[in-house]
Amino acid sequence: MELVAAALDGDRYALARLISLIEDRHAAAQDAMSALFPHTGRAHLIGVTGPPGSGKSTLVNALAQQIRELERTAGIIAVDPSSPFTGGALLGDRVRMRDLTGDPGVFVRSMATRGSLGGLAQATNDVVKVLDAAGFDVVLIETVGAGQSEVEIARTAYTTVVLEAPGMGDEVQALKAGLMEIADILVVNKADRPGAARTARALEMVIDRNAARDSDAWQPPILQTIALDGSGVPELLDAIDEHRRHLCATGLLAERERRRVERELVGVLERELLDRLVSRLGREHLDRWIERVVAREVDVYTVASRLCETV
Amino acid sequence: MELVAAALDGDRYALARLISLIEDRHAAAQDAMSALFPHTGRAHLIGVTGPPGSGKSTLVNALAQQIRELERTAGIIAVDPSSPFTGGALLGDRVRMRDLTGDPGVFVRSMATRGSLGGLAQATNDVVKVLDAAGFDVVLIETVGAGQSEVEIARTAYTTVVLEAPGMGDEVQALKAGLMEIADILVVNKADRPGAARTARALEMVIDRNAARDSDAWQPPILQTIALDGSGVPELLDAIDEHRRHLCATGLLAERERRRVERELVGVLERELLDRLVSRLGREHLDRWIERVVAREVDVYTVASRLCETV
Repeated sequence: MELVAAALDGDRYALARLISLIEDRHAAAQDAMSALFPHTGRAHLIGVTGPPGSGKSTLVNALAQQIRELERTAGIIAVDPSSPFTGGALLGDRVRMRDLTGDPGVFVRSMATRGSLGGLAQATNDVVKVLDAAGFDVVLIETVGAGQSEVEIARTAYTTVVLEAPGMGDEVQALKAGLMEIADILVVNKADRPGAARTARALEMVIDRNAARDSDAWQPPILQTIALDGSGVPELLDAIDEHRRHLCATGLLAERERRRVERELVGVLERELLDRLVSRLGREHLDRWIERVVAREVDVYTVASRLCETV
Repeated sequence: MELVAAALDGDRYALARLISLIEDRHAAAQDAMSALFPHTGRAHLIGVTGPPGSGKSTLVNALAQQIRELERTAGIIAVDPSSPFTGGALLGDRVRMRDLTGDPGVFVRSMATRGSLGGLAQATNDVVKVLDAAGFDVVLIETVGAGQSEVEIARTAYTTVVLEAPGMGDEVQALKAGLMEIADILVVNKADRPGAARTARALEMVIDRNAARDSDAWQPPILQTIALDGSGVPELLDAIDEHRRHLCATGLLAERERRRVERELVGVLERELLDRLVSRLGREHLDRWIERVVAREVDVYTVASRLCETV
């Protein structure tokens, strides 16, 4: 495939075209993914997540610039749950373009939900593989870490950075959103604002509670950054690199990779099995069963058992 | 089943026990759901969602009290993505208990994520059915509407109420989270705070844009409430009742019910098909394929196709 060869060469037009095929779930995308796959596995995958307003886009932007300073390359995937209608994804791109346009060492792509959630997670997986195969040293995956699904997407990374900002109410928002458990590195962004030290202390207390239970494990550092002027960003990249070294030294990188693959295979299998069942039974047959459930003649569990028996 | 009979009678201990079986995915839960199912379909299902800090729990509490004033009964399911460790779910229950304890016309249950996301969505579906079958007139489903998965859960309701609060930054948070598209009723809660009118106007502008495209449809009203003292809550319940009448009159209730059932059946089928495949192939066989993917010998799509062929 010409498109795959061009994408492997890092051709930006080919990358954009291939990602669009993935988003549209075009039949050609699957073949392309199979062809690309042997070239993956080299990039470090970094998830960046945090509550709305914590400054994720700005920090990801600053991280990409720091990565370029060190003459490494970065792919950025911004996963945005809001629809194109509300403009979230578009705005994010525009802000980034101002700083990163024209640099061939950076590739930015926003992804919005089209249809199902499972679809978005799988499309994100595939875009990560495309950028990995294209040779980017680092792939940054940014999600609005406020929902369970966004947390799932962030977990596909090897290193997960959780952001918090001071002055967003009395409580630590990341705590409320259940993000602490997945954090490899904690960042108090907007550290020039009042309350930054208090937010850092609040995070410290939670980390200490965790640490008491598991003293051998990685201790998530708590860093402070001002993404807007780049303060603390070199230290953050150092911490990310150190975490990667820790993952490699302890064998955890292989374990995370294995979990990544398992989660992905389960998702792909579920969809494939369902597609095959529906095309074998026929859409009308399934619809008749749905009508019977609506009429309370039979429940979904019984229907599922019976339909599976027919396979 | 004795437990099912007691739950149908509204016995609180039986309800709590049954819900625990569902959460634990106990084998007995499925039989119980089949037995309960013919008794479902009478409750009005109301989803309440909004960004963290918009006052969802307090409003749901106030709504339940108003429902009781009218001598109707309410089941409340608070879906909380944060883990028990962070205490979110527990706190919510405690706040509610103060006002609603001892009233047999209200039943409150918090549900936190245990394991997978799909698991939480399905468990929530089942708990809705339990409370419906037990005879509650209304089932309120509260989710932290900040992620796509929480939006999916809110969509299982017939009437979805989206909350916003003033003074949470310059932008309308619900807009950012992509909640506007699913709103049947919009509420500016904490309406005594500065900026409430501005927030309402911002919502009005978005609604107007939508309205221009689809003039026959339901126009989501924008209400203002102060959940803490109950202001505006009777009007909100009136709007919910009016929306239900609209759904019935237009045949949309049947359509939403059909979509609910279809989504649920698809989820149950996916899991059932996967479980059967794994138990047929054996866990070790699947693990060997995962290892081959990790080694980049083969990609997940190819593996999925081959495994499905063996069925």
